[in-house]
Amino acid sequence: MGVGDVSKRILLGRKLRSAQLGETLLPKRIALPVFASDALSSVAYAPDEVFIMLGIAGASAYAWSWKIGLAVALVMFTVVASYRQTVHAYPSGGGDYEVATVNLGRTAGITVASALLVDYVLTVAVSISSAAQYAAGAIPSLIGHEATVASVAVIILTALNLRGVRESGTLFAVPTYLFMAAILGMGGYGLLRLLSGSLPDAESADLRILPEEGWEGPLNQIALIFLLARAFSSGCAALTGVEAISNGVPAFQRPKSKNAATTLLLLGLIAVSMLMSIILLANEMRIRYVDPHALDQLRTAGGDAVPEGYQQHPVISQIANGVFDHFSPGFYFVVTVTGIILVLAANTAFNGFPVLGSILARDGFAPRALGARGDRLAYSNGIVFLAVMAIVLIVLFDAQTTKLIQLYIVGVFVSFNLSQLGMIRHWTRHLATEKDAGERRRMQRSRAINTFGLGLTAVVLVIVLITKFLAGAWITILAMGFFFAVMKAIKKHYDNVERELAADETDKALPTRVHAIVLVSKLHKPTLRALAFAKATRPNALEGVYVSVDQKDTARLLEEWDDRNTGIPLKVLHSPYREVVKPIVEYASAIRRANPRGVVAVYIPEYVVGRWWEQFLHNQTALRLKGRLLFSPGVMVISVPYQLRSSEIALEREERDEQRVHAGDLRRGRARDRNGRR
Amino acid sequence: MGVGDVSKRILLGRKLRSAQLGETLLPKRIALPVFASDALSSVAYAPDEVFIMLGIAGASAYAWSWKIGLAVALVMFTVVASYRQTVHAYPSGGGDYEVATVNLGRTAGITVASALLVDYVLTVAVSISSAAQYAAGAIPSLIGHEATVASVAVIILTALNLRGVRESGTLFAVPTYLFMAAILGMGGYGLLRLLSGSLPDAESADLRILPEEGWEGPLNQIALIFLLARAFSSGCAALTGVEAISNGVPAFQRPKSKNAATTLLLLGLIAVSMLMSIILLANEMRIRYVDPHALDQLRTAGGDAVPEGYQQHPVISQIANGVFDHFSPGFYFVVTVTGIILVLAANTAFNGFPVLGSILARDGFAPRALGARGDRLAYSNGIVFLAVMAIVLIVLFDAQTTKLIQLYIVGVFVSFNLSQLGMIRHWTRHLATEKDAGERRRMQRSRAINTFGLGLTAVVLVIVLITKFLAGAWITILAMGFFFAVMKAIKKHYDNVERELAADETDKALPTRVHAIVLVSKLHKPTLRALAFAKATRPNALEGVYVSVDQKDTARLLEEWDDRNTGIPLKVLHSPYREVVKPIVEYASAIRRANPRGVVAVYIPEYVVGRWWEQFLHNQTALRLKGRLLFSPGVMVISVPYQLRSSEIALEREERDEQRVHAGDLRRGRARDRNGRR
Repeated sequence: MGVGDVSKRILLGRKLRSAQLGETLLPKRIALPVFASDALSSVAYAPDEVFIMLGIAGASAYAWSWKIGLAVALVMFTVVASYRQTVHAYPSGGGDYEVATVNLGRTAGITVASALLVDYVLTVAVSISSAAQYAAGAIPSLIGHEATVASVAVIILTALNLRGVRESGTLFAVPTYLFMAAILGMGGYGLLRLLSGSLPDAESADLRILPEEGWEGPLNQIALIFLLARAFSSGCAALTGVEAISNGVPAFQRPKSKNAATTLLLLGLIAVSMLMSIILLANEMRIRYVDPHALDQLRTAGGDAVPEGYQQHPVISQIANGVFDHFSPGFYFVVTVTGIILVLAANTAFNGFPVLGSILARDGFAPRALGARGDRLAYSNGIVFLAVMAIVLIVLFDAQTTKLIQLYIVGVFVSFNLSQLGMIRHWTRHLATEKDAGERRRMQRSRAINTFGLGLTAVVLVIVLITKFLAGAWITILAMGFFFAVMKAIKKHYDNVERELAADETDKALPTRVHAIVLVSKLHKPTLRALAFAKATRPNALEGVYVSVDQKDTARLLEEWDDRNTGIPLKVLHSPYREVVKPIVEYASAIRRANPRGVVAVYIPEYVVGRWWEQFLHNQTALRLKGRLLFSPGVMVISVPYQLRSSEIALEREERDEQRVHAGDLRRGRARDRNGRR
Repeated sequence: MGVGDVSKRILLGRKLRSAQLGETLLPKRIALPVFASDALSSVAYAPDEVFIMLGIAGASAYAWSWKIGLAVALVMFTVVASYRQTVHAYPSGGGDYEVATVNLGRTAGITVASALLVDYVLTVAVSISSAAQYAAGAIPSLIGHEATVASVAVIILTALNLRGVRESGTLFAVPTYLFMAAILGMGGYGLLRLLSGSLPDAESADLRILPEEGWEGPLNQIALIFLLARAFSSGCAALTGVEAISNGVPAFQRPKSKNAATTLLLLGLIAVSMLMSIILLANEMRIRYVDPHALDQLRTAGGDAVPEGYQQHPVISQIANGVFDHFSPGFYFVVTVTGIILVLAANTAFNGFPVLGSILARDGFAPRALGARGDRLAYSNGIVFLAVMAIVLIVLFDAQTTKLIQLYIVGVFVSFNLSQLGMIRHWTRHLATEKDAGERRRMQRSRAINTFGLGLTAVVLVIVLITKFLAGAWITILAMGFFFAVMKAIKKHYDNVERELAADETDKALPTRVHAIVLVSKLHKPTLRALAFAKATRPNALEGVYVSVDQKDTARLLEEWDDRNTGIPLKVLHSPYREVVKPIVEYASAIRRANPRGVVAVYIPEYVVGRWWEQFLHNQTALRLKGRLLFSPGVMVISVPYQLRSSEIALEREERDEQRVHAGDLRRGRARDRNGRR
């Protein structure tokens, strides 16, 4: 293929793709752990929060935990069923954002996007705070330093993601399957011991829980409903992350939608089994669990306060301790795996954030650079932003999962609702044109599922808003409003620019002449190359321009110039105050004013160096000059690079950077195999 | 003057100068305060340090303070006499650095430069720490927070200098003359009262000073000499800043050298008078002054420790308090003016640092950008660096002047010595060729003065090194070594690059053809302008290049392109993974490979926007692409800017920036008058 052949449109796509790019699509057994860690990890804190909420009215209220678990399971299956419709209807992976935008319009779309952005931040804050609590449970010396531990963990995650972690399937598969094995194994073994009558009591079984003031004695109906609603809201934390699969359909093996739907169902089944088995065992083992920052709610059997320094383990830890009869390897295994899955869940947000960013960028709601793969700066800014926000929350709320959970879930349910509403519209629209009876039946069934889903998630959203608004959800809603406003503003800016730039008929006039000036600082290779390049473009006028700041230097240069006999005139601009940029800008503007239909081409010789500190030693003036000339109409700036030997270092570095994995690659179906090929 | 007339060399210098630039040369009465604040301000702490050092052996050693004052005065006059020779011989203002470089070579030159750089940092740290002590003396609630007060003051100074303070003569003249009036007035009035027998004792007159362990009783000779040497070293702090005038000769009114020499003499006389009158009054008023952090050295007349919360005022404050009979306006006036002069002295360093930087840049020892006036970034970096270093010292030494003074002066005396040695060489060289007898006599006299100066300052340097090395001077020497190494490395880099870039005969070959490609992202005004400009340069081949990431967008663009009928072919590069930069770089390289003697010209349409946040929304890809194309040989990059309406904001901001005063302008003879003209 001759590259000189410019008269045809050549498609280079295939060649590039086969030479350098490839797709590794995920089989179900790998896709499940990749997308499930967020959703599954919530069983590490959701049951605890249910017990904490119920415990406000004393341990007797624990009797409701069963029913709350079942209610959460019902919502879970409903949401799973709804999203199974989505993955079939929208296999492109746009998820809730796409569903809302297509069916309900832009405003709904960016509402969903704001909700998801906020939820990514909270996923990091909640998961890592919970992981810090598990860590403190296993390593007592960390107690009281949870916020520090959590902040450090976020910083480490950030560093790894900035560096570019290989997000391989194995990385997810091993801990996720171990976590499933640990929780379900513990649940199964516990059940066996329960049936054989040998299930021991938990370490906290002998404790009593003092009801909070105003919650003593038999509750009236309204108080009871409110209590259950709060516990249910917190339990719904188990639902976060379920939507992840709908964003990742393109990464699945064919048939993509079918495999994604199956994986979604599996995820729902596993999550519910884990949740229910934990609630079951916790009740049977008579676990008593209160807010770790309100241990004075606990009383010993004798009615005394628990001793100073009493350590309350998370529910999963207590179950593990009991079921495995204080066999410490079992305990440590469960706790370690739980901690890892929580960190993995947080990492999910680091991957999801840039993916969502690139989709928003494509639609003009985020800086366009986010849309191009490999813009490291843009990715980095997103990752750092996410980390800073998460750390602020962790520090503000002292890494208390119980408090952070009050901010959580609002966002998820906002997007659940808008997504379901969008799906109903979707089916209604398609039903209007569909003639095939079988197809119509299927669509009607889907619409019914989504309608039920909308009804149920709307109820949950209202419950969550009522029970959590003052406790923290208002912060979430404020943050969503902020993201919403920013995205609107960016979109408006792009739209304005587009209007201003729209081409019209007047744009056809060609400039009549090109006046080229070549900046000369010394007469060395870069300058000679710039002169040669400028000459090769055969401009109507060509001259060198030298800014004189020193009499002697100028005289020497003029002599050299004459010796070289380039045939190009040299203009000397005097600058007694060592200003370089201003005289050149003014000279270029003067040329342009004298010939408004012409173009001034300013050639700047540039050094290309390799080491970072060498950058400071060169091109600073060129940089300022270029920045300044941008404002001069009718002036174009030509960089003529001269590669110094050390530039090879930089080239290698650039190429190494390009090879790097970027956060979110895997879940967009862009995995790289072990040999570095994608 | 026709700008199209390119065959002649036109000198624009005069026009520019008269239109916008002007010089305000300083008369002696303004030059004195501008250059003297640093040297004069040291009387605010030098006497205190002398008393502290002597006090180690108890108040009886104060008897030596007289002689130490006289010794310092002797050094002062010697140095002044030496520098009077320098300002005559080197009226260009290069100061010690120039003298050392010209006469002793590069290594000596950058040794002096390193010494001066370190001393600028210490000037800031010492002056501001001392000012903080005065402030704490006047406002008791600041006691114990001196380091914080000092750090905040440095930050404020930094902000003012970054913003660009008008460094007007008045700004210096008023407080400097007030300070002279305050100290000399207080001295004169005190002397009058002494002669009339009405001079009261100081507030601390009744206290006793416990000698430090090992210094009790009559001292042996060696101990005494060491004690006096230490006190003398600290007293020599009064000499810092004397060299400033030799750097500022070009800012003086004509006859520059003569005026500078006279001002120098005046400076010496005033400084010595102030120093001696303070020592005299302190002795007569029986002031007792110890290290403010070793108040347990003080004993009341009864032999008890001073009460908790005893406040020890600096020497000048105590004198003011006594001489003015506790008349508080007098006290506050003296203290306030002293504080201001100390801050002004610190500001001197903020001005001197960039001036020295620009001289070093001119010679290739510092990044070249520092040499161009108005490179805000370069100036800013220098100012921030100076501030950060000063704050580090202040915090490390808890703003204790007594400790910081141990680091000071080494640098000054290193440069005194090398400068004197250089001057001796200078005269010897000139004497070798000079025939005129009168001129020869004058030169010989000058050489004698400089020789005496070298001898004396060498002795002082040795004393300072011996008495201060372990107490902190080693830090100074380490820092000097660091600066020295960095400057050497930068010079070596520039030399290497120069060698690599030297033009030879092979550089004459002209490229045979220009292949132009215009990047097309959309078909809007910026693209059309870039196409028009590219066409105007009449390249051998011209095509648009579009990177396709989306089937539909591509189809739409191709249609528009055909509709426009530009006559230019469009090449479409497919990029299934939304990479934009890589396909273009590879395509440009392929063109170049097919025709190694040709040049590839890549035209990039760029948006010019006004608001800082708009920058993030545009040109990010262009930026990455330009960075990447720099490494492709034979490729030149052409930015074709398109000014959006909002770019006017940025243009105005740029122009405002250019109007700004830069640190050090005044002392380089670049003052601006009140109307903003320079």
